[in-house]
Amino acid sequence: MWKLESSSLDLTVLPVEESLYTLANGYLGIRGCFEEGYPQHYTSIRGTYINGFYDLVEAKYSEKLFGFPEMQEKMPNLMDVQTIEIYLDGECVSLFNGNHVNYKRTLYFDEGYAERSFEYQTQKGKSASIRFRRMVSFQIKELFAIEVKIKYEGEILVKSYMNGEVSNYTDAFDPRVGEHAKLLDWKSSNLIDGRYMIITARTKQTDYEVGCAVYHHCSEKDAFVEIAGEQEPKMRAVYSTNGRMTLTKYAAYSHSRHNQEPVLHRILDIIKKHSIRSFDEHLAIQRLYLENFWHHSDIQIYGNDLIQQGVRFSLFQLLQSVGKDGLTNIAAKGLTGEGYEGHYFWDTEIYILPVLQLVQPEIAEKLLIYRHSILDHARKEARILGHKRGVKYPWRTIAGRECSTFFPAGTAQYHINGDIAYGFIQHYLQHEDLDFICRYGAEVIFETARLWLDVGHFHDGKFMIHNVTGPDEYSCIVNNNYYTNAMARYNMEWAVKFYEMLKLENPQILEEITRKIQMVETEIDEMIEASQNMYLPYDEVLKIHKQDDAFLDKALWDFEGTPEEKYPLLLYYHPLTIYRYQVIKQADTVLAHFLLEDFSEEASIRNAFDYYEKVTTHDSSLSSCIYGIMASKCGYYEKAYDYFMETVRLDLDNTHGNTKDGLHIANLGGTALSVIFGFAGYRIKNEGIALSPWCPQNWSGYGFRLIYRGRKLCVKVTDYLEIELLEGEKLQLKVYGRQYELEKVLKIPLEGLKRDDQSCNI
Amino acid sequence: MWKLESSSLDLTVLPVEESLYTLANGYLGIRGCFEEGYPQHYTSIRGTYINGFYDLVEAKYSEKLFGFPEMQEKMPNLMDVQTIEIYLDGECVSLFNGNHVNYKRTLYFDEGYAERSFEYQTQKGKSASIRFRRMVSFQIKELFAIEVKIKYEGEILVKSYMNGEVSNYTDAFDPRVGEHAKLLDWKSSNLIDGRYMIITARTKQTDYEVGCAVYHHCSEKDAFVEIAGEQEPKMRAVYSTNGRMTLTKYAAYSHSRHNQEPVLHRILDIIKKHSIRSFDEHLAIQRLYLENFWHHSDIQIYGNDLIQQGVRFSLFQLLQSVGKDGLTNIAAKGLTGEGYEGHYFWDTEIYILPVLQLVQPEIAEKLLIYRHSILDHARKEARILGHKRGVKYPWRTIAGRECSTFFPAGTAQYHINGDIAYGFIQHYLQHEDLDFICRYGAEVIFETARLWLDVGHFHDGKFMIHNVTGPDEYSCIVNNNYYTNAMARYNMEWAVKFYEMLKLENPQILEEITRKIQMVETEIDEMIEASQNMYLPYDEVLKIHKQDDAFLDKALWDFEGTPEEKYPLLLYYHPLTIYRYQVIKQADTVLAHFLLEDFSEEASIRNAFDYYEKVTTHDSSLSSCIYGIMASKCGYYEKAYDYFMETVRLDLDNTHGNTKDGLHIANLGGTALSVIFGFAGYRIKNEGIALSPWCPQNWSGYGFRLIYRGRKLCVKVTDYLEIELLEGEKLQLKVYGRQYELEKVLKIPLEGLKRDDQSCNI
Repeated sequence: MWKLESSSLDLTVLPVEESLYTLANGYLGIRGCFEEGYPQHYTSIRGTYINGFYDLVEAKYSEKLFGFPEMQEKMPNLMDVQTIEIYLDGECVSLFNGNHVNYKRTLYFDEGYAERSFEYQTQKGKSASIRFRRMVSFQIKELFAIEVKIKYEGEILVKSYMNGEVSNYTDAFDPRVGEHAKLLDWKSSNLIDGRYMIITARTKQTDYEVGCAVYHHCSEKDAFVEIAGEQEPKMRAVYSTNGRMTLTKYAAYSHSRHNQEPVLHRILDIIKKHSIRSFDEHLAIQRLYLENFWHHSDIQIYGNDLIQQGVRFSLFQLLQSVGKDGLTNIAAKGLTGEGYEGHYFWDTEIYILPVLQLVQPEIAEKLLIYRHSILDHARKEARILGHKRGVKYPWRTIAGRECSTFFPAGTAQYHINGDIAYGFIQHYLQHEDLDFICRYGAEVIFETARLWLDVGHFHDGKFMIHNVTGPDEYSCIVNNNYYTNAMARYNMEWAVKFYEMLKLENPQILEEITRKIQMVETEIDEMIEASQNMYLPYDEVLKIHKQDDAFLDKALWDFEGTPEEKYPLLLYYHPLTIYRYQVIKQADTVLAHFLLEDFSEEASIRNAFDYYEKVTTHDSSLSSCIYGIMASKCGYYEKAYDYFMETVRLDLDNTHGNTKDGLHIANLGGTALSVIFGFAGYRIKNEGIALSPWCPQNWSGYGFRLIYRGRKLCVKVTDYLEIELLEGEKLQLKVYGRQYELEKVLKIPLEGLKRDDQSCNI
Repeated sequence: MWKLESSSLDLTVLPVEESLYTLANGYLGIRGCFEEGYPQHYTSIRGTYINGFYDLVEAKYSEKLFGFPEMQEKMPNLMDVQTIEIYLDGECVSLFNGNHVNYKRTLYFDEGYAERSFEYQTQKGKSASIRFRRMVSFQIKELFAIEVKIKYEGEILVKSYMNGEVSNYTDAFDPRVGEHAKLLDWKSSNLIDGRYMIITARTKQTDYEVGCAVYHHCSEKDAFVEIAGEQEPKMRAVYSTNGRMTLTKYAAYSHSRHNQEPVLHRILDIIKKHSIRSFDEHLAIQRLYLENFWHHSDIQIYGNDLIQQGVRFSLFQLLQSVGKDGLTNIAAKGLTGEGYEGHYFWDTEIYILPVLQLVQPEIAEKLLIYRHSILDHARKEARILGHKRGVKYPWRTIAGRECSTFFPAGTAQYHINGDIAYGFIQHYLQHEDLDFICRYGAEVIFETARLWLDVGHFHDGKFMIHNVTGPDEYSCIVNNNYYTNAMARYNMEWAVKFYEMLKLENPQILEEITRKIQMVETEIDEMIEASQNMYLPYDEVLKIHKQDDAFLDKALWDFEGTPEEKYPLLLYYHPLTIYRYQVIKQADTVLAHFLLEDFSEEASIRNAFDYYEKVTTHDSSLSSCIYGIMASKCGYYEKAYDYFMETVRLDLDNTHGNTKDGLHIANLGGTALSVIFGFAGYRIKNEGIALSPWCPQNWSGYGFRLIYRGRKLCVKVTDYLEIELLEGEKLQLKVYGRQYELEKVLKIPLEGLKRDDQSCNI
């Protein structure tokens, strides 16, 4: 199952499909809009985006306190090249007016393109066959191409547009969608050499240039051609002929933020160089790229096509969304929409990186290198927040500035520091690449660890962290959030470990780093002291870790009295109301138990799952995958599968109702995590990797590959766990807690799920 | 000492004096600006305001969550009539260019006007004598008048303006000042009957009309007159003559918010009727009004003129600022400036009402009637905040809407409910007016009390209130703030008491009220249960009530490392930084101990003072008076006097640096409280009144009057406490905790302050 298909023309489905059918390559993203457009009253977000390209808009406050961000970075919607209109004997083709049959759209995960085709009948009863194909090239990152193929016994006229007057989408009711803004000023439209259409624009505040060059190739040599719109915001190319036409529209986008080369040169260069290849030739290259990707990264589900589709969709969209250049990262909505304004969050390290570092470690490294690149911003933010040392990473950002304007559920999430450190540490555990730590990790880990020393303090002999917000944004500004304290402990523990390691292995680098950040050895002693005495709040009666000092003292939310339509709560209740109750937006303590399972007893982890699950709304898309993974760990197989189903279908079924604003990228990562960390029970720790697999009963099995400390492994779970060492030296690993040596193949019967368990019909 | 004087022309002092020399009557307020203006680079806030008159402006958020106020009420600056220019033989008179001697300005507390006079020397060396006098009438609330008297051997030309193009002041750096906005649209300028200049305008959003009529009376019958500017935003009247001129400018302001009568009719009517009286005749009426006020309200300080001046200034400005119509209240800056945008806060009930109800009970009642009038707004706000019953008063408002856009230090201050209830209860205790409770108090007290049932919950048998902010805005969104819990307990206790009282005394009214608000008797049982089991957090080691559950666990603020110029902290530190430490903006637990001293042991009150004082910055002007009062209670006489000095001189010496934005009205109330509740130790409780006076050593004494349950009392404190019953039946009262009967006069020697105490040189 390598594709997604639809034939819906429903006005509520189409904006969702714009997100689902997005084509992107981590640099350029184009939503799956219809070339010919929609009826006027349809909602459409006709979007083209470049990862990391941003403008600044003024942050708005009626009461602005010290240190609140003054400007917000925002990903602009770029000049649109999607629009192509078809006229058959003068009749405008539309799926919404005329008659048509066999309408279908398809997104191919293995070939990396989207197709839309239908037979159209004109009012006079004549038939036409029309097919659109489009792709965003993985090989040439600036390149987008649309091919339209028309057969019609009569006059075919095609109008193809470039539109330089664009703005971003807005929804006043939903705080998760950014506010309306026109971020781009159109600058110029030119026709070069009589065939290259060029539009340039500049961002209003950052004054970055962005340009797009378009070239059309028409199959019919004798077609009439007219290109118009020079010095106008909208340019147009018209092609007309009879009988048949295949028009290929090549577009190249570039910008000045990350390129020295003048934008105009670059896009002209690219369009000239790459428009000589046919659409099919580009497709062939695309296929090779994806073949390589899937070879390493596919997660196979045996015996369940629907799930297989969902899992591959997730992996494909991750690949499409993730920045691969070390200058950019992966936004909460990737390049599939404008929700969260193109900002990067902790989603990267906690939901996406753990997948990528197993199967695409080079991309994973680029994401971490990006974090290293914004250290100076994080340093500045730490000073704004009154910390004398260390860094404080922005809760949401593109270029590094803190862009969160509601600090209780933004800037206050200090755990982002621990999350980023965790990303570096896990990457190290997986690949044992101390050189990477020397070049990027150590500085980040030291600087994030130092901040905890400044944020926290000792009270009654315990190290406490007051006044932060954990992952659960339904309790803000709390004391001793378990997740935060645990992550801080891990962060500091590893700062100490790396310090000692570098002291032995590479004292010169250590000296360079500590000199640069002016860290002294007594700080390492402080970290030892603080991490060893970290306060991890625990309730002796419930035998669970408390989400924070006060969480369990609060009244329980009245779930019975809360009607379905009042979810997500944040859209229907004042934060003060929500904060007052035991109600959780997303996995918090339960997430900590996933990431740092050795910090708790097994029993307490299970108790916590049982307790917190009852008060969790999963109003965030970052929740169900974690609960699913932890249900697997606890042996709650039915639950695990239910959560997995919620995860894998979240965007495909638009269960959160806002997929039109973009895909929930963290949840896509969560889908892969659910299989590998959930069903297969994969863990990576200092002492090596471990597996504790089970298999859902309506699958015949599943399998995936992974890279571990220079080795390539293939894991298959059917009635057996089968681990094959494809490349590299033999290794020790744990399965169900027992040590094994893997030389070539290990085959171990499954435990855990009892097939005769009556309570489990999955 | 019945006046304030100055002869400063310093550019930093003048904006402060604009506030200090404001003239107002609780309805109309006009800042003390120079008629002839200032040099261009001088800061001036040329303000004219009407209490309760407001426009709406959009509240701005980059991330707006559910229930955040969408609009904010804002007091507009009104059309300006202050400007009068004088030309002597064509030379424009200014205190900043020409030569002058004997410049002096004076504000008369006993006569209710301001004067500004100087001798001016022209460049040709000729002398002129110039005197401005101005008043805002207490008798005719719409009326403002300026009289300018000029003697000059030469040509005198006076240009007098009305300006309809006005806007509000802005300071981007200071969140305590509102944002720039042009709130008024000029509508018309007309000359009626050839002499009445009229300008009308409308507020942009609320579409209220406001109008001003001006009439000039010139002493010189043969003066040349010219009036210009019909249909222009700025009107002008020019008078010229030789030798001498006294020009009186009468202005009448009215608006459509609280008046049915067309604005134009009303202002014309007033100006016609009252401009026939001379300035001196109006002054005579003003003097009578103030004579009566001071007779009841003066606080006399014997033997210290500077203090006497400060105390009388405070009382005079309170009188000038307070709304007296039941439709309006008293703004945080009164009518003296635009800080806090004309909003009413808890300041009313906690800092101002306790003074007024002693000496001006009718005005005090009007303030409470206003609170009753906005119950429906408070009901609506409670629903927005997710409460099924009760009311939630707005933290800041003019007409009743919640106007706080930063909820952690605004809407979250639920204690406002308890504060308002406290106001009604104290008023009842002072005047035993059950009829007032029936008409206004009961509904307010029941509805505020009910809210606590919904906000709080039982945990381990104790009633807890989570997730609120106490008076100290340096710790926001906390659990079990002692102040809040204590006020909630008192609120509910008295709801129960009044319920029982009305059941006996006026069951019909009780039935009406409970039916109206749909309250059932089981709610009274709930209130008994909740108030009896109210959790009041206490630290067994320090033996103090904890400000909130977590306050004492936090790290101590680094006061030594905080330079002077970093105060007030809120302007220099991110709220997250501030919240993390034990640092207090203003009296919180200490304030609760003042208002509800019977909820704690004497020793714990003293311990709390000792502890919290060390971590309090007094960054709010609402702090020093309370610490002073409680220092008196604790017998810390030197401290008490120091705090009093800070209080009494706060605006006069501009110690908070922002007096230019308006006077700190609560602190002015606090000045009077400091004498009566601090030095004299006055308390009013269910069982009656009590005094525990002492006298600062560099005073020879002090005295004041008060009204208590139909009686009039005169209190003098010298070497003795002397209480005289001026009117009414004999009564029981307590002095230094001992019971006395007052039939005519009581004379009791002072206790407490030991005059031979070496540590006390005050």
